Amino acid sequence: MARLSSAPARRHLRFWSAATLALFLPVVSLGLIAAHTTGSRTAASDAAPPHEGMGAAGHFLLAAAAVLAAAHLGGVLVRRLGQPRVVGEICAGLLLGPSLLGRAAPDAAGWLFPERVLPMLDGLAQLGLALFVFGVGRELSGTRLRGAAGQALLISQASLLIPFAAGAAVAVALVDDHLGPGGRPLTFVLFIGCTLSVTAFPVLARILADLGITRTRTGQLGLYSAAVGDAGSWLLLAAILAASHGFGASRLLLDIALLVAVAVLFLGPLRLLLARWADRADGRRGAEVGTAVLLTVCVTASAALTAALGVHQLIGALLAGVAWPTRGRWAVAVAERLADTAKTVLLPFFFFGFGLTTDLGALAWGGEAALTFGCLLAVAVASKVLGPGLCARLTGMSWPSALALGVLLNARGLTELVVIQIGYQARIIDAEMASVLTLVALVTTAVTSPLLRLLGPGALDDRPLPRRPPPPGAGEDPGAPAKPAGSRHSADSVGTGA
Amino acid sequence: MARLSSAPARRHLRFWSAATLALFLPVVSLGLIAAHTTGSRTAASDAAPPHEGMGAAGHFLLAAAAVLAAAHLGGVLVRRLGQPRVVGEICAGLLLGPSLLGRAAPDAAGWLFPERVLPMLDGLAQLGLALFVFGVGRELSGTRLRGAAGQALLISQASLLIPFAAGAAVAVALVDDHLGPGGRPLTFVLFIGCTLSVTAFPVLARILADLGITRTRTGQLGLYSAAVGDAGSWLLLAAILAASHGFGASRLLLDIALLVAVAVLFLGPLRLLLARWADRADGRRGAEVGTAVLLTVCVTASAALTAALGVHQLIGALLAGVAWPTRGRWAVAVAERLADTAKTVLLPFFFFGFGLTTDLGALAWGGEAALTFGCLLAVAVASKVLGPGLCARLTGMSWPSALALGVLLNARGLTELVVIQIGYQARIIDAEMASVLTLVALVTTAVTSPLLRLLGPGALDDRPLPRRPPPPGAGEDPGAPAKPAGSRHSADSVGTGA
Repeated sequence: MARLSSAPARRHLRFWSAATLALFLPVVSLGLIAAHTTGSRTAASDAAPPHEGMGAAGHFLLAAAAVLAAAHLGGVLVRRLGQPRVVGEICAGLLLGPSLLGRAAPDAAGWLFPERVLPMLDGLAQLGLALFVFGVGRELSGTRLRGAAGQALLISQASLLIPFAAGAAVAVALVDDHLGPGGRPLTFVLFIGCTLSVTAFPVLARILADLGITRTRTGQLGLYSAAVGDAGSWLLLAAILAASHGFGASRLLLDIALLVAVAVLFLGPLRLLLARWADRADGRRGAEVGTAVLLTVCVTASAALTAALGVHQLIGALLAGVAWPTRGRWAVAVAERLADTAKTVLLPFFFFGFGLTTDLGALAWGGEAALTFGCLLAVAVASKVLGPGLCARLTGMSWPSALALGVLLNARGLTELVVIQIGYQARIIDAEMASVLTLVALVTTAVTSPLLRLLGPGALDDRPLPRRPPPPGAGEDPGAPAKPAGSRHSADSVGTGA
Repeated sequence: MARLSSAPARRHLRFWSAATLALFLPVVSLGLIAAHTTGSRTAASDAAPPHEGMGAAGHFLLAAAAVLAAAHLGGVLVRRLGQPRVVGEICAGLLLGPSLLGRAAPDAAGWLFPERVLPMLDGLAQLGLALFVFGVGRELSGTRLRGAAGQALLISQASLLIPFAAGAAVAVALVDDHLGPGGRPLTFVLFIGCTLSVTAFPVLARILADLGITRTRTGQLGLYSAAVGDAGSWLLLAAILAASHGFGASRLLLDIALLVAVAVLFLGPLRLLLARWADRADGRRGAEVGTAVLLTVCVTASAALTAALGVHQLIGALLAGVAWPTRGRWAVAVAERLADTAKTVLLPFFFFGFGLTTDLGALAWGGEAALTFGCLLAVAVASKVLGPGLCARLTGMSWPSALALGVLLNARGLTELVVIQIGYQARIIDAEMASVLTLVALVTTAVTSPLLRLLGPGALDDRPLPRRPPPPGAGEDPGAPAKPAGSRHSADSVGTGA
């Protein structure tokens, strides 16, 4: 008894009682229960096997790991070749998609990326794209085009209309061979013009970020022109589709009026409201979570709004980025964190995903198709590089800078691919035309970097555009170029220079 | 001629030439082309309407905005009632899902959350969950259980085995009424025991974060016990399913051996490798992107690995978090950024999504079902609170702390719901049993906070567990409690205190 009352012995006893309680008793009762119920057996079941793979979630996570690893690898490899990362990500997707892996080893491709997993990956891609474009909008909102607004507008119109007219003119020769079963000659011609008029705004923004030239005058003018031009292209596409289906002009005008109203709402009242909110949020505890949620809701809701108006969802995300406050501790910190995360971790899903859902091998190639491809490619590059380039030259840029701007606007990338798919699904163009245009889009994107290098290092006009002066007392303006705080923000070039 | 040679006049002329080039010429040529091709018309097409809504992407973005806004609102509302945010997020999902909105206004529910959008939302949910659990693993890796390891192991076994035995005992009385068409009595009994033995590790981690008690001794012991216990529960479930389908023990043993090998690999060589990599990465330019990609690939790949071994994917994400380096500038900064983003922006999709895909209204309620529910609930709460509680008391905790630990482990939440669905799909239990167990899971989760409050503010043992000493010369150890750098890391409580 004396031994038991000593402290270590008592602790010992307690430990073993606990062990008995936790392990011995349950196991014994389980044994008894098992013995009691083992008697009666039903027939062998025909239910699903126990290890039915790893379930949708496990499979999705495996695919996500594969996508990110492959996209990163592709990006790093093409950087060595002097191409922007995004080209490598698209190529990695093409390699692991139906174009190559799906053809060489359909079982492996089907196992790695089963049907049910693709939409889950697409969810990441779409959110990443919206948040990335939001970040681009923030970049734009920090810059003023004062003194360059007329120039930017003119260049954007040149970038839209000249390739449009040139494409339509070429299309007249193609209409007999490639008109889709659901199209009329006029809609076909206008549609081809529309596809050539597109600049892939997200791809352009990504290329600028990859090359570290987002902040140059050329880069900023290119972004503005692409944003305005893209909005125009989507409106034109909506008009063409409406015409193709016999819709009246009234609906189109209504949509345009609504879009303008939305833009005014974002750049006016909403911007002020958000700025006031950001100022107030700084004083509140726990405003970080609220800010992150508000930002994401703003971006996704405005993207959905412009999508509902028939313009692309990215225009809405861009507007949200322009309207987002440029001061306020949480507003700036959270926006940077989300945009950074989206760019590094989510966005590769978008670019990789395109390759993953495209089958380049399905193209039927012949002499005639190659000729069509060559013509369209020549017209596309010439009209996009020379049209806006001439415009920029006439409004005061040097020739190399003007051409560099044209080269940037020539990157059609994914936006054209989306437009092509819409036209193909509306049966305005036939399958061969769709394949040819797909290749035009990919080539015009891939030649952007080599052409820029051809123009020489002096081509980029890197005088900074005049920036909005930082608001009094706000040290956090992420755009203030002299602040060390801003250096993080332009880490595009650093982050992707590896 | 004299006027024209003046600089402003020349600029004027150039501007108008540019305008002509950009606007006038293309529009005129488009007019000519249009006039040329308008002649022939094909029949009116029957293609898709021009505005086919906003496309999958637009719809997904709309749904994402709705989910985040509703989940945040629900979280803020239940915070006022003293419940953790996560309960509000689940409730918001139930309200907008088939349980309420789908019943009251099926058209609205179908429009807001169409079928094709649900997997896209699920992608965000799964990635967010994996990254969140990774963050929890990082929390765990900063703490040492030296002196408390035996205690934690004992408590985890008590938390697993006592409710298991109690549940199996109750199930003996239920087997005649609720045996599913594909089950045997033994598997039924063991399965019910298994569902009650579960602690929802992610829900527990989220509740701890929401209440700001992750860093207390009680919180840490609870996390450890839940992690170890959950791994055990999944192994048991795998064993039950294997037994139910006549699989041998060899496969199960193989899986267990593989799982142990994976755990050793993660906590040994991989951890060292990552630490060395993190040290090297600090010196490299552009290591940020690489770090973010490496982190996400690590998390998703290890999650997929454990899922493939038949254990839940979250165990893999947890292991990745424990193995992730705790020093190295980029390694720490990127991990915090990703875990924060996942918690605030992606994780609500998971908890909301559960409500969105569950139809509580489908339960068929009668007197007998209510009795079954009451019995199971009582057994579930009593065995989880008292079993580990008694164990903790016997190993040296005060009664209130020991009971608080039991209450924490009683939160079964989503893990039990997943287990129930697996058992229902394997037809071990019938539909009524599945409904009853679903409600048990929800109630045990919702009572966690009220019961904790009932135990009083002194119940939580908030003596910090002994922490690993910071490595010499490394100022960034996020766990070092005295460092201000660590305060950001435990911002859980601040972030969710709004």
